[in-house]
Amino acid sequence: MKEARVMIVGFGVVGEGVAEVLDSKKKQLEKLGVKLSLVAVCEKDGCIVDEKGIGVSELLKLKKAGELQKHSGWKKKMRSVDAIREVDCDIVVEVTPTNVESGEPGLTHIATALDSKKHVVTSNKGPLALKFSELVEKAEKNNVELKYEATVCGGMPVFNMVENALASNEIKSIKGILNGTTNFILSRMHETGVTFEVALKEAKEMGIAEEKPDYDVKGIDAAAKITILANALMGRKLAYKDVKRVGIEEIIPEGIALAKKSGFAIKLIGEITGDKASVSPQLIPLGHPLNVGGTLNALMLETDLAKEVIVIGRGAGKIETASAIISDVLEIVKSRK
Amino acid sequence: MKEARVMIVGFGVVGEGVAEVLDSKKKQLEKLGVKLSLVAVCEKDGCIVDEKGIGVSELLKLKKAGELQKHSGWKKKMRSVDAIREVDCDIVVEVTPTNVESGEPGLTHIATALDSKKHVVTSNKGPLALKFSELVEKAEKNNVELKYEATVCGGMPVFNMVENALASNEIKSIKGILNGTTNFILSRMHETGVTFEVALKEAKEMGIAEEKPDYDVKGIDAAAKITILANALMGRKLAYKDVKRVGIEEIIPEGIALAKKSGFAIKLIGEITGDKASVSPQLIPLGHPLNVGGTLNALMLETDLAKEVIVIGRGAGKIETASAIISDVLEIVKSRK
Repeated sequence: MKEARVMIVGFGVVGEGVAEVLDSKKKQLEKLGVKLSLVAVCEKDGCIVDEKGIGVSELLKLKKAGELQKHSGWKKKMRSVDAIREVDCDIVVEVTPTNVESGEPGLTHIATALDSKKHVVTSNKGPLALKFSELVEKAEKNNVELKYEATVCGGMPVFNMVENALASNEIKSIKGILNGTTNFILSRMHETGVTFEVALKEAKEMGIAEEKPDYDVKGIDAAAKITILANALMGRKLAYKDVKRVGIEEIIPEGIALAKKSGFAIKLIGEITGDKASVSPQLIPLGHPLNVGGTLNALMLETDLAKEVIVIGRGAGKIETASAIISDVLEIVKSRK
Repeated sequence: MKEARVMIVGFGVVGEGVAEVLDSKKKQLEKLGVKLSLVAVCEKDGCIVDEKGIGVSELLKLKKAGELQKHSGWKKKMRSVDAIREVDCDIVVEVTPTNVESGEPGLTHIATALDSKKHVVTSNKGPLALKFSELVEKAEKNNVELKYEATVCGGMPVFNMVENALASNEIKSIKGILNGTTNFILSRMHETGVTFEVALKEAKEMGIAEEKPDYDVKGIDAAAKITILANALMGRKLAYKDVKRVGIEEIIPEGIALAKKSGFAIKLIGEITGDKASVSPQLIPLGHPLNVGGTLNALMLETDLAKEVIVIGRGAGKIETASAIISDVLEIVKSRK
């Protein structure tokens, strides 16, 4: 049995999903020969630390009641960076919200964890979209792993798929729908002929778009993902600001209708070909495998040996993202001697 | 650098592809810290053995000229089973043609290799569709690995994807297009309105269908794949003969036209739900991600955490299949201590 102690930094929706899966998959993980224990959970206003292992059901109950501070392991004044440095653990799961301007607080958390010789698994796009090479080098220097399957399309295996199942393949180009919110809006416009504003309103009502939707509709989220894909899968030294970016706010029903009449749908496509990386609306033939509807994501990899490989799946969601994080954690544990 | 000695059993199209990729990817593999050397190649009428490593370019030249027997390492009377037993090597790549009735000669090759404590990588569906549990148990007993990514849709990562990228997910159902030849025929019928016979003739002319097309059009190939998927991904003790199977020969243009008018395409679908496994023509909505055209394959996995994940890619092809085999070889080499 391989054992590993895990710490969760950022206890929002994703962090909660990770704790839930650690609990619900306990037996299945033990069958795979892996025993994971949760030794710390960090929030903005304090941390819970218990190096003997935090009971997940009690933790989730307190979280739901908004009473984490009542936990016996609660340390009010402990900051996340200090916990990352001081708590005896193997893997830091960094799941604070993405900020593509500063990368913080994730950037400091991840750098601190790597410098403390702790493996890192993250769903946070900001630090990787801004400082990919620096963080990868820091991981190598400290002889620990940095894994980020959950940063690009949570429910879709991308990085681990290429690393393992497409090992020895060279990725020649990448093209895909990388944001579920904009895909939902464009799919509704395509199906019903409504305006962008109406489709956005609907998406907000369904909880698919946030109140301030810029991050999605301006293509910021997709551009951060394209940056990570370019660096991780194609070895490009690309920064987030290098991605040419056009959002979907200017798309009008007449444009969609004209495309539809000609056998196309308009999709927000992230693409890396040659030296260029972009996120912009593109015409996709109706019968094309990338032309998926609803909130689905789709990614087409052109490879030298396996040729084109397309993966379609859920881009986000609490448990889908937790699934990606757990697969990264398992990869790290399995590869440890 | 991790080193491994590889032997190829069956030197047809797939075997040749494996040798080509071993050669063309040599540097890239060394970058990944892996050095593979080819120490034996077995054919029906003899084997080439050179434990110092067979030069691939010379080998391919002789193969193309039909003069393998001129190789300095040629052993005319050596049978494959003897070579598998006697040649000092780590991994046996078994790529003889599939026979779903007897599983031979692959079944004997694979069993012999496992009993000789050699790892096995295969593209041969027969042995696994007939004796999955027995072979897996034999591998476990001998403490070696049996990998078979190339048996199901060569260019599409399936088993390694689930094992690594979807680790900890439970697969609840599987549904997909698992045969490129029949998908080509049905796609042509859908697009142009021709009969099955005309589309089949076209497929033969293009080298997509074989002269005796039963294996594909009767769903035999897809049923063998469904058997392997059910055993490997869902732990079902299913044998090839348990799969309910209907081919595509009875499909008439009128049926396709009616489906099309109602927004569907007819596709040959392999499916595992509950206790049932089948291969049969099904109506798939035109906008559905499984509705891929040409010779493409598509597989939808319903999982508990990541929800539905769809992979689309090339089902067969020399280099695509070799890509799957090399990814298996690398998984074995990487996991060796």
